[in-house]
Amino acid sequence: MTRIDPSQRFADVTTTGTFHGIGLGPGDPELLTVKAVRLIAATPVIAYFAKKGRRGNARGIVDRWLVPGVEEMALEYPVTTEIHFNDRAYVDELAAFYEHSASAISTILTGGRDVALVCEGDPMFYGSFMHLYIRLVGTHRVSVTPGVTGMAGCWSAAGSPITWGDDILSVLPGTLPEADLVSRLKGTDAAVIMKLGSNFAKVRRAIDAAGLTDRAIYCERGTMEGQKILGLREKPDDAAPYFSLILIPGNGRRP
Amino acid sequence: MTRIDPSQRFADVTTTGTFHGIGLGPGDPELLTVKAVRLIAATPVIAYFAKKGRRGNARGIVDRWLVPGVEEMALEYPVTTEIHFNDRAYVDELAAFYEHSASAISTILTGGRDVALVCEGDPMFYGSFMHLYIRLVGTHRVSVTPGVTGMAGCWSAAGSPITWGDDILSVLPGTLPEADLVSRLKGTDAAVIMKLGSNFAKVRRAIDAAGLTDRAIYCERGTMEGQKILGLREKPDDAAPYFSLILIPGNGRRP
Repeated sequence: MTRIDPSQRFADVTTTGTFHGIGLGPGDPELLTVKAVRLIAATPVIAYFAKKGRRGNARGIVDRWLVPGVEEMALEYPVTTEIHFNDRAYVDELAAFYEHSASAISTILTGGRDVALVCEGDPMFYGSFMHLYIRLVGTHRVSVTPGVTGMAGCWSAAGSPITWGDDILSVLPGTLPEADLVSRLKGTDAAVIMKLGSNFAKVRRAIDAAGLTDRAIYCERGTMEGQKILGLREKPDDAAPYFSLILIPGNGRRP
Repeated sequence: MTRIDPSQRFADVTTTGTFHGIGLGPGDPELLTVKAVRLIAATPVIAYFAKKGRRGNARGIVDRWLVPGVEEMALEYPVTTEIHFNDRAYVDELAAFYEHSASAISTILTGGRDVALVCEGDPMFYGSFMHLYIRLVGTHRVSVTPGVTGMAGCWSAAGSPITWGDDILSVLPGTLPEADLVSRLKGTDAAVIMKLGSNFAKVRRAIDAAGLTDRAIYCERGTMEGQKILGLREKPDDAAPYFSLILIPGNGRRP
């Protein structure tokens, strides 16, 4: 059992702060939940991840909901280049960064103030929040507010129901080897392919090999300004920024 | 290409109403989005699905957000028993029900008023909304507001990050044959099993056969009053109501 029930722990600890993980949704600032907006307004320290020297996507989405006097805490990733998880030094550097961030937040919590880490999408679905969560949940009160995922923002914006009846949905990272992608795509009813970036050309070939190009939809910046949604076949290039994914809607039972 | 972009259609139609599909999230009324609350307050007719003689789950969640004078439209399913999709007469009856519902909504839209169909979770993710959407999107202006899915509500409430790093997530209906469930579970990093109901005992056997019982979390009424979250091994019986699912969190990369 890896399950942790934060609400059952530290119920008697009233002098230290709570660490909130708050999902901001897919990008449109109106797609925060009522609870997220309330907690953001009530929390004295708002933290977010950002690439060095950038404002950060989460900071952009949350902008209109910050109240005057709030303390901001930018957690800046130690590297700006594309991630290489096979590089041991990189992994160590990232671990040290998460340790350092958790420690800084822990100090504020111990001092009696709450901290909210705001995150694009949902905090527990491929979220960097989780790396701080597992470091703090054993020693601090923690609360998680779910958010609309980026993929749900995309399939709504595309007007494409994703799963019908008894459809199986597979969420696949574009980092998978090409042959794995092909077999996974052939063996599912519906799919979402995340983490495109430099994997885009490979992903496109895999979708084509699985015979799914005509059903595939490319979605970039779904629900945000500059939103681009087009059939994969019509996408002219292989460029795919952070906020992009490919949808392959299911074809299940439709009475 | 099955993609439809509602925003690009009917841009010049200003005298007829808009059909809104609005996700209500996993159950906690505070987990509606700001956009959902705004649209619900601004739409004169609020529709929802319900079993005959029941108030309906969506109606319960949306309760506090309805404004005085709103017109309610309960769309009552023609049958109250467990669904049997192999029964042709049942499928025909359901199709007739969706046709009738779409037609009733179409009449209101044509009369110039907007209609919002409010739905548990996200409207495009196994949502009954989709059956009306495909019947109306060709002839009416349609807008879809995504919601927090039931599964995201559950993994947040359980304090269980669901996918890490390059984890693959499989969303599986409990209706799958037992052997299929076993092989799907063996071949994925993380899983969510929906549609438990009378499939519960079978699903439990499949999880056990895949060697995943100790990682499996049973979640009932996540984020709602009466929420129950426990390890699958600790669940004493095989009863599983509508708002229940099983989570199998991934174990991917954690720097």
